[in-house]
Amino acid sequence: MAELFTVLAPAEAYRVLESRLPTGMKTERVPAVRALDRVLCEDLTSPVDLPDFPRSTMDGFAVRAVDTYGASEGLPAYLTVGGEVLMGTRAETAMHVSEAIRIATGGMMPEGADAVVMVENTQAVDSATIEVVRPVAPGENVLRVGEDITRGAIVLASGHVLRPQDLGGLAALGITHVEVARCLRVAIVSGGDELVAPDQEPSPGQIRDINTYTLSALVERAGHEPIPMGIVPDVYEELAATARRALDMADVVILSAGSSVSTRDMTAQAIASLGEPGVLVHGVSLRPGKPTILAVANGKPVFGLPGNPVSCMVTFDLFVGPTLARLSGRRAPPRNVVRARLAHNIPSAAGREDYVQVALESRDDEPWAVPVFGKSNLIYTLVRSDGMVKVELDEGGLREGDWVSVILF
Amino acid sequence: MAELFTVLAPAEAYRVLESRLPTGMKTERVPAVRALDRVLCEDLTSPVDLPDFPRSTMDGFAVRAVDTYGASEGLPAYLTVGGEVLMGTRAETAMHVSEAIRIATGGMMPEGADAVVMVENTQAVDSATIEVVRPVAPGENVLRVGEDITRGAIVLASGHVLRPQDLGGLAALGITHVEVARCLRVAIVSGGDELVAPDQEPSPGQIRDINTYTLSALVERAGHEPIPMGIVPDVYEELAATARRALDMADVVILSAGSSVSTRDMTAQAIASLGEPGVLVHGVSLRPGKPTILAVANGKPVFGLPGNPVSCMVTFDLFVGPTLARLSGRRAPPRNVVRARLAHNIPSAAGREDYVQVALESRDDEPWAVPVFGKSNLIYTLVRSDGMVKVELDEGGLREGDWVSVILF
Repeated sequence: MAELFTVLAPAEAYRVLESRLPTGMKTERVPAVRALDRVLCEDLTSPVDLPDFPRSTMDGFAVRAVDTYGASEGLPAYLTVGGEVLMGTRAETAMHVSEAIRIATGGMMPEGADAVVMVENTQAVDSATIEVVRPVAPGENVLRVGEDITRGAIVLASGHVLRPQDLGGLAALGITHVEVARCLRVAIVSGGDELVAPDQEPSPGQIRDINTYTLSALVERAGHEPIPMGIVPDVYEELAATARRALDMADVVILSAGSSVSTRDMTAQAIASLGEPGVLVHGVSLRPGKPTILAVANGKPVFGLPGNPVSCMVTFDLFVGPTLARLSGRRAPPRNVVRARLAHNIPSAAGREDYVQVALESRDDEPWAVPVFGKSNLIYTLVRSDGMVKVELDEGGLREGDWVSVILF
Repeated sequence: MAELFTVLAPAEAYRVLESRLPTGMKTERVPAVRALDRVLCEDLTSPVDLPDFPRSTMDGFAVRAVDTYGASEGLPAYLTVGGEVLMGTRAETAMHVSEAIRIATGGMMPEGADAVVMVENTQAVDSATIEVVRPVAPGENVLRVGEDITRGAIVLASGHVLRPQDLGGLAALGITHVEVARCLRVAIVSGGDELVAPDQEPSPGQIRDINTYTLSALVERAGHEPIPMGIVPDVYEELAATARRALDMADVVILSAGSSVSTRDMTAQAIASLGEPGVLVHGVSLRPGKPTILAVANGKPVFGLPGNPVSCMVTFDLFVGPTLARLSGRRAPPRNVVRARLAHNIPSAAGREDYVQVALESRDDEPWAVPVFGKSNLIYTLVRSDGMVKVELDEGGLREGDWVSVILF
């Protein structure tokens, strides 16, 4: 089978894939303590008022506000100390007229009390009496029932990515388990007769597998589970069989195959054999990354990424990352971007989107982006870079000195 | 013991702590596949040249460049096809004069060949002969030995945080294990007679523990291991004993205690009992978070954070986060910041740093930061916020309409 490149622009290529992705999400119920950074898949409402009793927000005395009206330094109100609220317990008795009950920050207001006088605004007269030198209004220094959140109110909506404070908020309500998007299992197949595992000594002509490791880490960083399927030789039957096994086991399949035309054809054929609708995009107007394959088989996305490590990473970013986000209910992952001045001209053909690796450097207190040029299958181009600069489809290149956006790795 | 507030500005308070932190780092050797986002603690040099054989970067024919000089469409060079290099193997024979050996992208150059003619620039004359219609220069379409990285070159320096492409780069060199900073064990103690665990039904006057869960998630997000020590009642002996056990087990201890003066005193006393040099800072000119305690005991940092959830999170960010980064060889964690216009005035006392929670909103296509006001011990203030706005020490407040930086959660 010869390569038939129906080359699409990257954004268009992704839209074609996206339109065929399954809708709906696989969810699972997990303990809230394991749910950091997971996507919530239910609308949560509060089962209780928080707090469910009025609480003091100060150290001082619970009082009836009316008993303090008109109090001043010159004419204090005298109140009888009627006891103390112990933390974590209900006050034993209700308030009497002209009574003050000792209370600490967070303590439960006694029945009949409607305000708290700060300890700083009181003075002990004797062991049973205090002077109050400033009046308080009803509700002053008191947290009302439901002031934090009321019973039945929406706590967090489906689609929210759970942050540390959200887990604290759920703990406060006694919500100990939540329904979240299941982590996706992403199978990674590295193809190539020349590949050996990193712990092997390559013979002449062989190299160690790189993409399994870069891709696994990219999947891990996106919050999902990589399933490395190992190295497959350039034998159609073996590649197709491994791809089929991967499709059975995983939610998403990535094949990263060799860079020669014949191995690319083999990859496309193996992907096409997996199921309907099959290959949707074969070829993207992108450098590096032109021979990318985007496919869906039996409701699961399948990616054929170029074998060279730089293309592989760029195309993961452009196509796999957004797909994983989409399937797990996230917004496309935001990228850290910094502005810097370009240190060299970057030529680019119109009608093609280019991604150029750059290292950041400070010159005269200005940030500069220095292109890390190199033949495209060099992994150390990526290792030496801090990020990439995108040249838009019809921009036709960028000029030295221009301010550009650097997408950080 | 009465509270003696020697109130320091936040940055100064952190410097006091930092100056007493242990130097040097605890490291461990882990498989490279488990090392994503870990801090490298050794300088790695390449044990090999990469590639360690010259490789073709194109599909085509390996040739001696000299045999193609002067070739053109009108006057092609005729070369004898001397065989094929199979991927992952060494070419069987050396090149002869006027010979061409079929080679695929990534294939090993045969001995004597110094360039590759792209297949597009050749034409088959018969099964044993090709025409070459464009000359190639020596080295053209060939990756030299060591062109990616040379043996002995520094691959990655100590202190580097390992990214996906770095793990790919290590795989390429056969580096399967790396020395990295050990994850820190961070013990978290929540104190308060009023606290119950989230799966318990609170009695009147009791509330569920929040800070254990917020703090654990913050520790987890920073890449370290939270050790929740459970809830400790407001009994000095129990608090001190738990703090001591925590200090034995962990690298860092966080006590989050009640908000009343008496429980704060108890926390300070318990921390002071743990060892030398003890409490370094007690009180920070900060809102929320004034009663923060920074201490070092037996070479380990100990934090007494205010019990209220908002203060607790703000002070974690300002003091615990940077300390964890520092102890594990990272730079202070960069925060995502966005610019937005302030929707209300924020008053602030001069000489105090304020952090105000805000929700982001779009109005007429402009981003606005809307302060989420609320009494400071409301966890849902944090849940409803997208980030915080800092009011500098002597800024004395911010005005409605000002452009401000929002530190995103």
